[in-house]
Amino acid sequence: MLIVQKFGGSSVANAECVFNVAEIVTEKYKEGNKIIVVVSAQGDTTDDLIEKAREINPHASRREMDMLLSAGEQISIALLAMAIEKMGFPVVSLLGWQAGFNTNSTYSSARIKRIQTERIKAELDKNNIVVVAGFQGVNRFGDITTLGRGGSDTSAVALAAVMNAEICQIYTDVDGVYTADPRKIKNAAKLDEITYDEMLELATLGAQVLNNRSVEMAKKYNVEIEVLSSKSRVPGTKVKEAAKMEKMLIKSAAKDTNVARVMIVGIPDVPGVAFQIFSRIAKAHINVDIILQSVGRDKTKDITFTVAADKGNAAVAALKEYIDMVGAKEISFDTDVAKISIVGAGMETHEGVASRMFEVLGDAGINIQMISTSEIKVSVLIEAKDADRAVSVVHAAFFDDSLAL
Amino acid sequence: MLIVQKFGGSSVANAECVFNVAEIVTEKYKEGNKIIVVVSAQGDTTDDLIEKAREINPHASRREMDMLLSAGEQISIALLAMAIEKMGFPVVSLLGWQAGFNTNSTYSSARIKRIQTERIKAELDKNNIVVVAGFQGVNRFGDITTLGRGGSDTSAVALAAVMNAEICQIYTDVDGVYTADPRKIKNAAKLDEITYDEMLELATLGAQVLNNRSVEMAKKYNVEIEVLSSKSRVPGTKVKEAAKMEKMLIKSAAKDTNVARVMIVGIPDVPGVAFQIFSRIAKAHINVDIILQSVGRDKTKDITFTVAADKGNAAVAALKEYIDMVGAKEISFDTDVAKISIVGAGMETHEGVASRMFEVLGDAGINIQMISTSEIKVSVLIEAKDADRAVSVVHAAFFDDSLAL
Repeated sequence: MLIVQKFGGSSVANAECVFNVAEIVTEKYKEGNKIIVVVSAQGDTTDDLIEKAREINPHASRREMDMLLSAGEQISIALLAMAIEKMGFPVVSLLGWQAGFNTNSTYSSARIKRIQTERIKAELDKNNIVVVAGFQGVNRFGDITTLGRGGSDTSAVALAAVMNAEICQIYTDVDGVYTADPRKIKNAAKLDEITYDEMLELATLGAQVLNNRSVEMAKKYNVEIEVLSSKSRVPGTKVKEAAKMEKMLIKSAAKDTNVARVMIVGIPDVPGVAFQIFSRIAKAHINVDIILQSVGRDKTKDITFTVAADKGNAAVAALKEYIDMVGAKEISFDTDVAKISIVGAGMETHEGVASRMFEVLGDAGINIQMISTSEIKVSVLIEAKDADRAVSVVHAAFFDDSLAL
Repeated sequence: MLIVQKFGGSSVANAECVFNVAEIVTEKYKEGNKIIVVVSAQGDTTDDLIEKAREINPHASRREMDMLLSAGEQISIALLAMAIEKMGFPVVSLLGWQAGFNTNSTYSSARIKRIQTERIKAELDKNNIVVVAGFQGVNRFGDITTLGRGGSDTSAVALAAVMNAEICQIYTDVDGVYTADPRKIKNAAKLDEITYDEMLELATLGAQVLNNRSVEMAKKYNVEIEVLSSKSRVPGTKVKEAAKMEKMLIKSAAKDTNVARVMIVGIPDVPGVAFQIFSRIAKAHINVDIILQSVGRDKTKDITFTVAADKGNAAVAALKEYIDMVGAKEISFDTDVAKISIVGAGMETHEGVASRMFEVLGDAGINIQMISTSEIKVSVLIEAKDADRAVSVVHAAFFDDSLAL
């Protein structure tokens, strides 16, 4: 059985951690599996390197930044290989370019175009444990590129896809995906399984366990992922196609406070207004989440939408000229809001889900400002101060008496 | 004019140093030269990485050590490129494999087999300053290798050779080659020029300014080297063919305390004894420096030779069995000795040189234990405690009244 395992920076932060990882890896190897290990840079290495660069040139080219940062994984793969050697197992470390990661030339956030697997296959055939540097590749000019945030997850899933691995185990500092943030909600429960789409929804809700690109890639190539902890040796949460899973309902309740609400009050109620507004927002490279448009009244209407908290200013600036031109009463934004969501496959067939969520929030005296629903998600916008309480009551409603809707 | 410049680890130890190097580089570039810069790892990076490895596995494979250590230059070339970018000059950094350094597979002390110059030439044609990682290359399996001690000097000289550079400037923490160690001898004078052979002799004497392999390579390919300091902006010492130089006599007086003297007393005076002894020493991979054999007496003789201080034990061990077999009175070694040498081209035609050296040592009451001479060198072995005084009187004899032999 071929297994791809991925370990993040905190999992290899020091010698002790590195040996812990080496033990997890060699345990699976001893069971007769072929193992590819994808590793990120050690703990603070990347931050240290960024600081070194900032001291010299805060506007360094991305090419040179990638050259610099990719040294981080080079160090960690060598150290992990040394630990595995010490334990007496055959091992070889490979950099991104050695492992065949061909990317485009978008330095700092390159996309993997192809993985040439000859070298990895040859090493696996020699019964070597193969330790691969995550996050990095090489472009067609022979220059080093990096994949950007969460790039090592993407490296691991991509390898699992092209190598037809049985499973891609992503080791993190949490031991799985929970029905709510376990640090906040006492009786949050770990999920055994979750679908790709649900995982993607969770990620956009601020519950960032896996990088989105890697989940999208896993979905596209049908790679089964397991999210688990490198500290505890317990099964984690499997991310896979719904078809493989028993049908479950609500999977998780989550909050996202990284939200700004932009309000345009009293804009003329004529066709094309929404297009004019959101095309300008798109041109400013701002992603819009929830959109709410009031019913027209007195020939004007109100349009409200949410963006990431740090994009509130930019969104207002992008619209200023247009708003002045067409004449609107007011444009403003505030970040004193939070988005509370519940996620679960098959939600669309259970109308009771959304209404039950609204009910418990109302019972708790929490005012709902905006509502957005998708096939597998219900999100509401509320005041930020109510966020934790909202997650708590919603979680209680759906998980404490479980699926008894 | 194409110039290769090489900067060691202390020259790029921190942001300030990196900018100092960037200034030296861009000054030459502004004069209209094409520039290739070879850089070592920053200050203590290599030691830090070695310590990380030692913590995990003191017996790590050399392949993984090379993988680990080569990250050091990767960091320094990126940082130097960023500094040059900041100053507004076009620049590109290249790793050993990107710069075409093909080596054999002797990890940790690989030999350069070939440099494929296409990439470097293309970058120079684009008017880029090319910053190359010293010390590293790639073998035919696509694995990273390092060149061992002083490897960056070798990288620089090799590049200067294949690129037909006008000169290879090696920047160090001294501003040239001196007639004696300037930290010890007050009136030691900096040389304008020195030949390759003299430089090699100096290196074996412990005055390690340049790595031997790089000097040998420079001699073979007739690459003119300039040794100079990255701190002061003064001309250094040029290392080149004697033909190019005005004939000078004594170039330098140096001492080497890394010496063990091995003595075999009372060994049978029969043919083949020397062969038996030194073939065993060679088999143990021990380099022998001076050899002294006494005239036979009472059918026995004494053989004394010197090796590096830390090889004394091994040399005695290698000979134990043979000595016991043929019967010798005693074998022992001591490290309480020092080698004092004077070096200079054309010495063989001036018999007065050696005798003057012996004379001043005798006048100073310093006993000479062994003598070795070559065409360009006279070395004597003395007691370690006399070493500094010996260099002083010898230097005074040859340099204070200059060439008035």
